Amino acid sequence: MTTNEFFGKSIFLSNWFSILLVTCVAVLLRCLVAKFDVAKYLWGHNNEEFVSNLANNSKEGDCEEYLSALPEVEHVPYFGATITLPGGSKQFYEMANNRHSVRAFKPHPIPAFEVIENCILAAGCAPSGAHTEPWTFCVISNKDFKHRIRHIVEREEEINYAQRMSKQWRSDLRPLKTNHVKSYLTDAPYLILVFKQVYGFTKSGKRKQHYYNEISVSIAVGILLCALQAAGVSSLVTTPLNCGAALCRLLKRPINEKLLVLMPVGYPSDNCLIPNFKRKELKDIIFVN
Amino acid sequence: MTTNEFFGKSIFLSNWFSILLVTCVAVLLRCLVAKFDVAKYLWGHNNEEFVSNLANNSKEGDCEEYLSALPEVEHVPYFGATITLPGGSKQFYEMANNRHSVRAFKPHPIPAFEVIENCILAAGCAPSGAHTEPWTFCVISNKDFKHRIRHIVEREEEINYAQRMSKQWRSDLRPLKTNHVKSYLTDAPYLILVFKQVYGFTKSGKRKQHYYNEISVSIAVGILLCALQAAGVSSLVTTPLNCGAALCRLLKRPINEKLLVLMPVGYPSDNCLIPNFKRKELKDIIFVN
Repeated sequence: MTTNEFFGKSIFLSNWFSILLVTCVAVLLRCLVAKFDVAKYLWGHNNEEFVSNLANNSKEGDCEEYLSALPEVEHVPYFGATITLPGGSKQFYEMANNRHSVRAFKPHPIPAFEVIENCILAAGCAPSGAHTEPWTFCVISNKDFKHRIRHIVEREEEINYAQRMSKQWRSDLRPLKTNHVKSYLTDAPYLILVFKQVYGFTKSGKRKQHYYNEISVSIAVGILLCALQAAGVSSLVTTPLNCGAALCRLLKRPINEKLLVLMPVGYPSDNCLIPNFKRKELKDIIFVN
Repeated sequence: MTTNEFFGKSIFLSNWFSILLVTCVAVLLRCLVAKFDVAKYLWGHNNEEFVSNLANNSKEGDCEEYLSALPEVEHVPYFGATITLPGGSKQFYEMANNRHSVRAFKPHPIPAFEVIENCILAAGCAPSGAHTEPWTFCVISNKDFKHRIRHIVEREEEINYAQRMSKQWRSDLRPLKTNHVKSYLTDAPYLILVFKQVYGFTKSGKRKQHYYNEISVSIAVGILLCALQAAGVSSLVTTPLNCGAALCRLLKRPINEKLLVLMPVGYPSDNCLIPNFKRKELKDIIFVN
């Protein structure tokens, strides 16, 4: 006897085809409602969809029942920026344009730890969705930890270059002359691992949403880069593929934190070379109306 | 006759249950392989998964067949930062800490357009995945366009506040005293709409991957914020929910561009108030090893 005959006695099962058909139509309609937006997950993270999901997944109730995760602070007058640069935007641009990613560091001299602290304090001034401040900066200078981090990253990067990255990707990276060997992870005096807190906790231990956490933490990284440059310190923004979980375990990060970027920080080695790329011109990045 | 009897003559269909079972097991195994990582799409964009997809979806072949999207430039010596701040990281931190998000702008005075250009040039110095520079900055000062943008945003924000945002989200925003009325969109002398190019095109018109484009463009936004502050100009980072497509159409952006943030830029209005939040302390954002 076929499985069909066996299950044929149930009304539900004997009409399986109609049910399947209705389900398919429902799924199709759902896709249409989402405006064929399936492709966007392939090409980039869509915040709108992401946030819609957040909204829809949240339990609803009377608004008054919900406490804000933020304190209800007073609003005070603000008269605009008072601490600026004497040379304004031009001076800032010259400084930003002087920054270059460095892939070869010397172990000495070591930038003062106070400098690193100031740079992280500056990064912590970034705006964030509903003022959630969803960032953690792990500063590693311990030799043993740097070696363990290098071991984790090189092990994964060897597989990345051999299997996980497409041929096109490897070709795109060729002018950068990178490979899976990452000596900067043990040479640089500091490694800053920036974690995004994908959610947080209220004082009462309730889970709290961190809206747009990836954008917020990336903005903080932009400020961190500028602060390091202001102090004359070089860095490199890396996103080591498939290393997040192992690095979280090594650094005993809580479950709500995910690695965003890993940055070696210090001074370039004496024989440091950088690719002589031109930046895009203003007319290629601006649109005026 | 039931649909079951009708389709029962096919071997394939009469064994539908076994086939369904095998499919389910296959899907389950796929989920196990992905290490139960379904949840991460709810909590945040996972770059590793995203990039793995990119790698796997790319057509493979002999590496030598692939041209790099970047030119094969020479590598030149780099001796580190030469343009810094006299007060180093401390001066930078004080400047960053002086920046506050502003929600009430005055239409005059208008910051010089050159200032905006310098700030965008500085933002364009951000690092990006494989030096793809995946950003476009649309600067809007035209009154009519500002009104049209406000119309689009307020229409959607009214629905966002009424339906799309969860009660918890609205409660979390309560201390910010925001609602769907966005006068800053017509009051501020400039609106800067920052678009991420989720992919690009090579000179020959071939599609080219923009690795980690959202992180890269968000880092550029961080630099833009600092540059504006250096020039004494205030701003607000907003992520208007569900407005991306309409704003892309209005500004005739190409299909590879998605709105990341919309920033009103100018000077605070005379009666501007800001919430008196404290920033997290250093000890709460740093972890040292």
